[in-house]
Formats: sequence, structure tokens, C-alpha cells
Amino acid sequence: MIIQPIIDLVSLCAQKGIKNAILSPGSRCAPISLAFARHPDIHARTIPDERSAAFIAMGMAQQIEKPVVLVCTSGSAAYNYAPAIAEAFFQQIPLVVITADRPPEWIDQWDGQTIRQTEIFGKHVKGSFTFPDSFDHRDKVWHANRITNEAINLASQFPAGPVHLNIPLREPFYPEKEEIFDFNREVRSMEPLKGTLQLLEDVKQKLSSIISSYRRILIVPGQQRPNSKILQILNEISCEGIAVVVADSISNLQSEYTINYHDHFIGNDQWVENLKPDLILSFGKSIISKNLKLFLRKSKTEHWHIQPGGYTPDTFQSLEKNIECHPLSFLQFLKENAKSNFAYVQKWMELESRVKSRITQILEEAAFGEYKALHNCFAKIPIQSKVHVANSMAVRYVNFLGERPQEIICNRGTSGIDGSNSTAVGCNFTTKDPVTLITGDMAFFYDRNAFWHNYPMNNLRIILLNNHAGGIFRLIEGPAKQPELEEFFETRQRLSAGYLAMDFGFEYHLANDERSLEMGLKDFYNKSIHPKILEIETVSKNNAQVLQWVKQKISEVLNS
Amino acid sequence: MIIQPIIDLVSLCAQKGIKNAILSPGSRCAPISLAFARHPDIHARTIPDERSAAFIAMGMAQQIEKPVVLVCTSGSAAYNYAPAIAEAFFQQIPLVVITADRPPEWIDQWDGQTIRQTEIFGKHVKGSFTFPDSFDHRDKVWHANRITNEAINLASQFPAGPVHLNIPLREPFYPEKEEIFDFNREVRSMEPLKGTLQLLEDVKQKLSSIISSYRRILIVPGQQRPNSKILQILNEISCEGIAVVVADSISNLQSEYTINYHDHFIGNDQWVENLKPDLILSFGKSIISKNLKLFLRKSKTEHWHIQPGGYTPDTFQSLEKNIECHPLSFLQFLKENAKSNFAYVQKWMELESRVKSRITQILEEAAFGEYKALHNCFAKIPIQSKVHVANSMAVRYVNFLGERPQEIICNRGTSGIDGSNSTAVGCNFTTKDPVTLITGDMAFFYDRNAFWHNYPMNNLRIILLNNHAGGIFRLIEGPAKQPELEEFFETRQRLSAGYLAMDFGFEYHLANDERSLEMGLKDFYNKSIHPKILEIETVSKNNAQVLQWVKQKISEVLNS
Repeated sequence: MIIQPIIDLVSLCAQKGIKNAILSPGSRCAPISLAFARHPDIHARTIPDERSAAFIAMGMAQQIEKPVVLVCTSGSAAYNYAPAIAEAFFQQIPLVVITADRPPEWIDQWDGQTIRQTEIFGKHVKGSFTFPDSFDHRDKVWHANRITNEAINLASQFPAGPVHLNIPLREPFYPEKEEIFDFNREVRSMEPLKGTLQLLEDVKQKLSSIISSYRRILIVPGQQRPNSKILQILNEISCEGIAVVVADSISNLQSEYTINYHDHFIGNDQWVENLKPDLILSFGKSIISKNLKLFLRKSKTEHWHIQPGGYTPDTFQSLEKNIECHPLSFLQFLKENAKSNFAYVQKWMELESRVKSRITQILEEAAFGEYKALHNCFAKIPIQSKVHVANSMAVRYVNFLGERPQEIICNRGTSGIDGSNSTAVGCNFTTKDPVTLITGDMAFFYDRNAFWHNYPMNNLRIILLNNHAGGIFRLIEGPAKQPELEEFFETRQRLSAGYLAMDFGFEYHLANDERSLEMGLKDFYNKSIHPKILEIETVSKNNAQVLQWVKQKISEVLNS
Repeated sequence: MIIQPIIDLVSLCAQKGIKNAILSPGSRCAPISLAFARHPDIHARTIPDERSAAFIAMGMAQQIEKPVVLVCTSGSAAYNYAPAIAEAFFQQIPLVVITADRPPEWIDQWDGQTIRQTEIFGKHVKGSFTFPDSFDHRDKVWHANRITNEAINLASQFPAGPVHLNIPLREPFYPEKEEIFDFNREVRSMEPLKGTLQLLEDVKQKLSSIISSYRRILIVPGQQRPNSKILQILNEISCEGIAVVVADSISNLQSEYTINYHDHFIGNDQWVENLKPDLILSFGKSIISKNLKLFLRKSKTEHWHIQPGGYTPDTFQSLEKNIECHPLSFLQFLKENAKSNFAYVQKWMELESRVKSRITQILEEAAFGEYKALHNCFAKIPIQSKVHVANSMAVRYVNFLGERPQEIICNRGTSGIDGSNSTAVGCNFTTKDPVTLITGDMAFFYDRNAFWHNYPMNNLRIILLNNHAGGIFRLIEGPAKQPELEEFFETRQRLSAGYLAMDFGFEYHLANDERSLEMGLKDFYNKSIHPKILEIETVSKNNAQVLQWVKQKISEVLNS
């Protein structure tokens, strides 16, 4: 007999619009798992490795922008969720993390699979709740409903994020043979009716006189999902000379009117005076380009950040205003109140177009390596493909390569290499469009358990840049000089994806030059019942040389 | 230029007897990693997946009984350590966990690889320390030395466990080209000079009169490493009829004088009156046998636990005395003061010998399956091999199979399936003797990154019981009845270890009947430059039947 509050918890999740649950096997969690598996409106999947399970749930929630439920058993299982929970917290992705637990009296009595689960995710969840462990008083039934409502609402509130619900359970864990779960009982749902923040009239009046005094406004959109309305107004702002828009690939706001190749010139001191803004406006989350970050920090320019609430990072060390409204409403206001300065926008566009007009040719002349290979791949990636890019070199290359029409997804909440495969698999579970994962070998093999389950991933395409090492360490100056480079930084590793492809039934193609890459790409996006891996094998040393060579060529273009 | 306090930290670790460090690659942690890698008295290894790295370090510390250092970079890396840290905490294994961090001003500013690392391991470390982030005052130099001393001492103090040292670091992360690390500077070491707890004379006097009043004393040694002195005195106590010693395999205190087959009869109510003790004595950590636990709880017998300090779990719900001394000294006292009752010991021994005399024959008659296969394997496992057994069925089978001369290791701190491979690899790094890992398919594939590194593991032997599922769920009554059994509990998975063996260069043999198993075992322990996997493929349903059949046969023997 499964206790009704567990059934009601699942009913409430469904009522509140939760449609997906990722379960991991266990006995203590069986009542919860069974209730999710049996609920008619919830699609439950089971993933054995909890580390991957949590990143998969996050990859789903990242796309559907609604909470996904995670369920695991008691003990260390919960801790395997932790890396994904930290990522979800900083990337502001809603998750409802449900962990089964022993009842309180059995904690610290050396029973199996028992750790100290209360508040186990520390400062990386928006809230942590403990379910009642018995229902002998009617207030406890109310309390269970109350905290479930609170947890789910909190997960979705801006800024979204993970919440933790710890559920102590006693035996029996399994229903009787013909037991029917009653999902039709009336369960109270506390419904949040959303408002939208508008700037106060007197704030607007104050700002309108200030804003018109700025002559060099620079807009930096941080990581966010594609938004055609924001893109359109940014394009208008740029075309009207009101501001320069500098867009990293993960902003998903690149266009021909935005600056997309900034990484190639922004680090160079000689342009600083021309490019320096007198006001920085930002919205969204983090940016990738370290050069851009350093340029803006050095500029010591006043910075305003626009977001409806939550903590506001001081990324450029010069934050002066938090503007508490939706970016779209502020951008409209900006467009109406700021003055044009075509000359400033033109200074950025001039450098942008020099790089843009020559980079393809430069890459075509370059020796084969990751850089060129990725360039060639992008020519074949369908526009409607979602592109998940792993940390750490993969996402940098993508940023170097400029404007992308595809949605670019990357785990930049914590910027770890853990969990990229799983996040892409989660994305794959939410769409019929192809999902392309671009990853390096360290990130790829780190998270190979992403593929260890029985659910179809037929539209998943993996482009694996395998240099048999953490190649980034050869590309940054410090470690490249150390005698310990290969053992302790690059951590050379000999794996190729061939056996992994056989293990998991993936189609597999190996490319190690331009010709074999072309072959591999030829049918890569054709429909298939199996996921496909295109492994691009390169030599770490050569990649470092190519990167230098391209940099040199682009520098010549910029100075010509 | 690497700051001297980091060099001094590593000198101090060496001075305090730390000889091993497991590093994971990263840039923020480079100063720490390089100092460990360059220290002449410390053996540093690098493991890319932090989850495995931490279990490997734990597997080493489990054997050498001294702290092993872990070093990772900032961000989610630390959270990948968490499952192993919880295991080490409850298994009381010393680890010094060093995490590089951004300096405090850069937390929560959307910089890459930045999470909230302070006290990230919550209640699963013995202590959590933050290194100074600058050394502009001499007290900070003192403080760095002070907390490093404190952390290392704390890790080793009884009960041992993990400690966390979070180290905020600013650039530069890499030394200059010819920079020499000065490990010879004088660094203060606060040396703990250990005492040993002896019972007070008046406590002894009080106990001696009490102890002689008990007529049915039962000793339950919990999980611990082999200890020949304790084993000898337990044998004497048993031979002299002073107490029954009921020894799970993980107690490493089994002998012909202890009860080792209790799992076969203790769950049966018909023996309860004969076997019920009037005093339970325990020392060491947890026990595996659920039947034994339930038997002792139901008996409501007074329980005394012997350990020199730390919290004392109330495993049998009847704890009445904590005896704060070394078990050996108490057992000596017991031997001198308790009265013999051969009749009580004999009642246990009678059942024990019935099972013992027939189990081999029963298993030989049984159909092929995991149970029989393991029985056959044990006939070939060398006495000097360390045997690491994974949760969850593997360790239960081993417990059913009775007395083992080999050291039995199992992660019973949290009893998770995560990290068994890595723990065995860590054990392998500490010994020239063969290390045998006995594992199920779920635990094995869960932790496959244990093998993803470049260090030799030539004396590692893996016996993989592959039933392509979490077979335990078919063996316990609740889930076996559910329609969701295969998808949500067993989580059927099709992997075999063949491709994995090719990936990592392991020798591989597949057995699926008695004959092929015999073939596989023939040269299994011959010397080799490669680790070896013996995969035993069975059918989950058949294993459940065999288990039932053996149970039935043993029940007949007991009742005959």
C-alpha cells in the first residue's frame, strides 16, 4: 500500500504542468518512482547513473523551460546529482529534485544507503524541503501539500533553478498486487499568476534624461535562449546607430547587425580608444569571451544590468544600476530615448567586417586541425539543429567562428566539462529536430554514461574533436611551458570512440583529414535509427600551431 | 612565480607522512598540482574524472590507513568528489580534499568554473577550512600553516575521515621557466602524539561484576580491516565458550571458530529461542546481514559498543553502553571476567556446521548462475588477493558463501554502487598482491571511468557478474511483482565488457556456463602486463530461481 501523500505529490506535479520525470533505480524511492511511472500525464524515463540522469533532466528543462523532476533513492545517489544541480543553479534552470530518504530515526545508525541528506545541496538550490515522515496529524497532510506547492513554484520563479524535496519513507515500498493509484483525488494547487515588471514612470523620466547623454553605448547580451523579439529590436538599435551589440555565440542573438567576431580583435590594445564605450548595458547570463570581459573591465565604464530580479553579478566591476524589468521593455525604452552615434557603431563594424570577409579564406588555407574541421562542419549543420557545445575548447572555437543561425547551448553555469553529453541527450529527448553535440575528447569520455539507457536518440549527432588530451592546456601559455604538461595538464588519453559506438549501437565515422571529414559529413544528417558519431582525430600540437597561424593571419588582415 | 604558502602546504603534507596525491587536471589548481607533482617524497597521479579520482584516493587510503590528498580545480569538479567523500566519511577513511577556488571577490560574478565552494561537502567532512587568499600580514602565513596542520591531524584522528581545504588562488597559476620550488624551508608541523584509551579502574570493577552475570553473550564485529590479534582473542573467547562470534565477511574476522553462515538460518523464527543472546557486544563499523540485524533488533537485547570515541550508532535499537577503549583491550577483559557457557555457543555451532558441511555439495548440484559461479571463483582466488566486492548483490553472495581467508573490502559506508571499480583501482595502486574486484554489471558500468588513466593496473582481476540488469530487484519480493520491474527497477542494459576491455587494453574472457568459467579461471591469476576481466554472463530470472532452490535445500538440511 503506497501512502496517499506520495500519490498526491505526483498528482500535484502533473497539475502544475510537469510532464517529465527522470528516475534512477532504487528500492527506497520505489513508491515515488512508481507513482511517476504510472501517472498518465507524466513521461518517466529511467537512467541508471545519477550523475548523467541529473544532467539529462537539466538538458530537458533547459529546452522546455519548465521544471523536470528527478527521483533517486537514498544514500550517495543524491550526491551524484550535485554537479548538474550546481550547473542548473547558475544557469537558472528549473529542476524539482526528489530524493528518497530513510526516516529520521535511522540516520547515523549504520544502516545501508543512509547519509545526511537534509540540505545536502547546500547553497546550490533555491530551496530545500523535508517531507513529513508520517501523517498521523492532518496538519502534516497540509504541510506535505504546502511544501510541494512551494518547491515547484520556487523552481519556476525568476531566476529559475533547482529545488530539493527530501522524502523520508518507511516500508512497505511496493504496492499490493492489484493496487490502483488514485490520481483523481482533489489536491490543492497554489497557482502563481505571473506579473511582469514595468519600470516606474519617475524612473523612466530620470533615465531618459541620463540616457541621452551617452554617446558610445555598448550592449552585451549574456547567455540566453533565442528570442526573435529581442533580436529584432537589437538589430534596429544597431541599424539606427544607437548602440553597438557585441554578441557571443551563447547569447543566441547574433545577426549581421551584431558584432560576432570580437574575440579576434578585442584583445588588441591598439583598438581600445576607438572601441571603448561610455555605457555598458547587459542582460541574460554569462559571456564566454575572456577578451571581451577583460576589455570591458579595463575600460572602467559604467554598467547597467537589466533583469527582473535575483542577484546581479558585477561581471565588469563597474555595475551602477540594476534595472528591474524585462530586457525587451528596456530596449524599447532605449531605442526611444538614446541618441544615435553612427560613427561609434561604424568603428566596431569596420573591424568586424574585415575579419568576417577573410576568415573563411584563411581557414581554407589553414592546415587541417580542429579549427578548420569545425568550420567545415558548420557548413553542414542544419539551421534547425540545436547545437550543444561542450566546454572548454569546443565552445571557444565556436565563438571564434562568428555568426551562427542555430541555437547554441552550452553549460556555462559552472563551465564544467562534466555532463555535456547528458545535457545534449536531454535536449534530444525534447525535440524531433537534430541535436548536434560538439565536444572534445575529455568532456566526451568523462560523461560516457549519458548513453547508458534504453531510450532512442536517433536524431543525436556527435562531432567529437579528439586530440587525445585536454588540448586547451597546450593552447594557453602557462601550462604549455611546464615539463608536467602531458601527464598533469593535458592528461593524454588514448581512447577513440569506436568501441563506445559499438557498445551503444551508434553509427561511427572517423575523420583525420579534410577528405575523410568531407566523407563523414556527407550523410551525417540523413535520417537514421541510430545516433551518429563523427570523430575528428587531430594532433594537439598541430592544433596549437593552426590557432597561432590563424591568429597571425587575422592580425595581418586587421592591420592591412 | 608560485606563492610560497602553497609550496609550504605540500612540504607539510610530506612531513606529516602523506605519500600519495591524486590530482585532476585544471588551471586554477595548477600551483597546487605542480607542487605535489614536484615534491620528491610524494607520488602524484592524475585521474581525469573527479568522481573516480576521489574513489581511487579513498581506495588507497583504505589500505594504507593514512590520508591521501585529492586536488581538483574550481567549479563543479569538487562536487564530483562528493559521493566518495560521503563514503569515506561513513567508512572513516582519511582524505585531505584540496579544492582550488577563485578568490572570494569573484564568487557569484558569472566567471567560469566558479561555484560556492565554502563548506560544499556539508555534514560529510570532519572539518572544512578556507586558506587565506593573500599573505599581506604575517598572521595569514601562520594561519595557512595552522589550518593545514589542523586539517591533516583531524583527518587521521579516530574516527578518521575526510577534511576539506578550500584554497582561493589568483593568477599567475604557473611557475616561471626555471623556477625552483623550495621544499626545504622550515615549516612548522604540529605533531599529534597518540595515546591509547584504557578503561578506568572503577569502570572495570563495575563491569567485571556485571559481565559475569551474562550467560549468552554474542559478539558482532562490524566492518574492519584484518587484525590477527583481535582474531586470535575472538577464537579463544569462542573456544572457551565465553561468547558466540557472528562474523560477516566484511568484518575480516572469520575463522573456523566464528559463525559465518548465519545468513542462512538467522532469519528463521524457529531458532530464535535457542540463539537469542542476553548481551550483544559490537565493535568496528556496519554489518551486511539484514537478517542478523533484524534478529538482534527483535531480540531487544542489551547492547554494548566498544570504540575509542566518535558517535556511536544504535544499530540494534538497544544500545546501553559505549565502552571507550580499544576493542582488543576490552576483549581481553571480557575473556578474563565473563563466564563460559558452552551450551549456548554449541547451539550456534550446530547450525553453522550443518550449513557448512553441505553448502558446497548443494552449490555443486545447483544450476549454473551467479551463486555457483562465485563459489567456483573463490576456489581459485589466491589467499593473498585483496577482494573488493561491490554493492549490492555481489557482497550479499559473498556473505552467503561463508568463511573467507582473503581480505574482503566493500564500500559499506554508504553502500552505494558508485565507485567500486575506482576503489579497487586505488587498492591496486597500494599493493603488489593481486586485487580481485567482484562486481555486478550495474556497479561495473556505472564506474567505468575508473580505468580511464595511464597508470598500470596489471595485478587487477575483475570478476563481472553480468545479468544485464540490477538483478537484486528480481530477488527481493516487492519489485519482482510490479509490472514496472524491467524498465524501472532492473533497468535492463545490454552492455557486455568486451568493448570496454578493448578500450582500456584489458584481457577479457567470457563465461556463460560451468565449463567456460573453468576455462576462464584457469590462467586468470597468472602474471600479466594487462588487467583481466572474467565476465560471467547469466540470466537474471535463473539467478532468482537458483537462489530460491539453494535456500530450500539449506532449509531441508537445517530441519533434517
